[in-house]
Amino acid sequence: LQCFNGTSRVRSFSFVPDFAFAHSPLDRLSAIRNNEDKLKKLRESKAVSCVRISGDQLLFDGDTPDFSPPKPHENIILLGRDPAQKNWFATATQATDSLKSIRQIMIDGALPKEVLSIIAQARSLVHWHETHGFCARCGTASVMSDAGYRRHCPACHADHFPRTDPVVIMAVTRHDKVLLGRQASWPHGMFSVLAGFLEPGETIEQAVRREVKEESGIEIGRVEYFASQPWPFPASLMIGVIAEALNDHIEIDATEIEQARWVGADELRLMLDNKHPDGLTASRRDAIAWHLSVAALQRLSVET
Amino acid sequence: LQCFNGTSRVRSFSFVPDFAFAHSPLDRLSAIRNNEDKLKKLRESKAVSCVRISGDQLLFDGDTPDFSPPKPHENIILLGRDPAQKNWFATATQATDSLKSIRQIMIDGALPKEVLSIIAQARSLVHWHETHGFCARCGTASVMSDAGYRRHCPACHADHFPRTDPVVIMAVTRHDKVLLGRQASWPHGMFSVLAGFLEPGETIEQAVRREVKEESGIEIGRVEYFASQPWPFPASLMIGVIAEALNDHIEIDATEIEQARWVGADELRLMLDNKHPDGLTASRRDAIAWHLSVAALQRLSVET
Repeated sequence: LQCFNGTSRVRSFSFVPDFAFAHSPLDRLSAIRNNEDKLKKLRESKAVSCVRISGDQLLFDGDTPDFSPPKPHENIILLGRDPAQKNWFATATQATDSLKSIRQIMIDGALPKEVLSIIAQARSLVHWHETHGFCARCGTASVMSDAGYRRHCPACHADHFPRTDPVVIMAVTRHDKVLLGRQASWPHGMFSVLAGFLEPGETIEQAVRREVKEESGIEIGRVEYFASQPWPFPASLMIGVIAEALNDHIEIDATEIEQARWVGADELRLMLDNKHPDGLTASRRDAIAWHLSVAALQRLSVET
Repeated sequence: LQCFNGTSRVRSFSFVPDFAFAHSPLDRLSAIRNNEDKLKKLRESKAVSCVRISGDQLLFDGDTPDFSPPKPHENIILLGRDPAQKNWFATATQATDSLKSIRQIMIDGALPKEVLSIIAQARSLVHWHETHGFCARCGTASVMSDAGYRRHCPACHADHFPRTDPVVIMAVTRHDKVLLGRQASWPHGMFSVLAGFLEPGETIEQAVRREVKEESGIEIGRVEYFASQPWPFPASLMIGVIAEALNDHIEIDATEIEQARWVGADELRLMLDNKHPDGLTASRRDAIAWHLSVAALQRLSVET
């Protein structure tokens, strides 16, 4: 992971970080989304796959995902075209026994990272349609259009667009330590970096400072962008940063997190490698949180 | 504007860029949003201001904004507390003759930047309530709660949260030039950097590459984060980056932009200073676009 170039802290953005959902190979073909003829042609083309989603689960056919071409009755969303010229669509499917949790698929790691990223796009879009069947402006049932990237209200003529929720997630550093917290609902012993939703009227940097202050009482100075990750549970954009604390004293907000502590480089390394003597862990490699911790660790190693 | 440290491209994030809406002084007091007693106390405290919004306009009383304390009948949203311990709220107001466009207020520059930032928060939240009165899941009228940061559906019990739409905005550079485009609807002669909404399942970097490719045909390599700006028309988060082009040949998508061209440092400087012989301009200083152009210009100056 070549994030920081020694002491100069130059961040290279040509690398693609090895976390989940960030490896989509698709050309989204947005120019043809409202061209019914071209969409029909795509749907009937030779190489077509359809991702079938129910809630946060994916439809399987035996041991592999059911990516069979869309049936005539299926109301499909255009995902895009992959480099092998295969056209990808998504649709909602009914709850059956043949579903598998997308989180579990991510953890198992059996699917190529490109396919997992396509599934993330499918999940976020299908969820948006499933939870936005009515016009929020007037309450009338709305209609999917633009191949799944718009819903139109036939009564008040409002247009609605898919929603993506920006989340700030931050490795907070102070001298030779990183701030980690845990929520009561997490698996025993798991810690991670802090995170929270960005609010209307905030910059990324303001959201970082507010969230860290609210959850831990720590004041933040310098904020540095690291990388971003789509997180399809249901439709977040994780904006990862490294943030420098201005004070040490932790005062947690117990409604948000159960515990927060400063962790040194040696202990963090044990947690990241799943070798901590007390069984403490630091999130999963699929999450940007793990990579933020590693980047913070590299920085600590450079500076100390 | 100390964005880049000479040739090493180290980005300092302690500076607050001097664009509009990014200077909120408020503590958002999110811990008390669902505490009715504390909210009542705040509302009745001595130092209270209420921002009154109608669409993208602000209510005035004569020559100054009507920030008078909330009337008993007004349904208010908590904005936060400023450093002088004044509590700020927002509410929707009816269309009257005493309204002034928030864009025009921004352009006039008569209000302190901190107050303009508070108005941005108010505008985004009021707009969300005005356009989300019904549950998108079931169509029933929903009810404002959490001092304005949630709407609850009494029928299906869904909770809805304010929406912020991430937008990528990028200064694309190639050798000694910056890519600028213009939309047909813009004032005559105005050019700006490219921008577009991030879609579900994308990273920031992927959205930058897709948008630039779609609008101009240019391929992007390295992407570097610059800064972010809340943009309350109605509720965007502008994520500003500098992006390096891998090719020169422009092919515009005429449905998105009318024209795109490579502009050299000397010409860009004339545009930024409003001194271009043909009257070409490069967006307003209030927008992050202007500051992205300046940052790109500084980089060109360093490299050439």
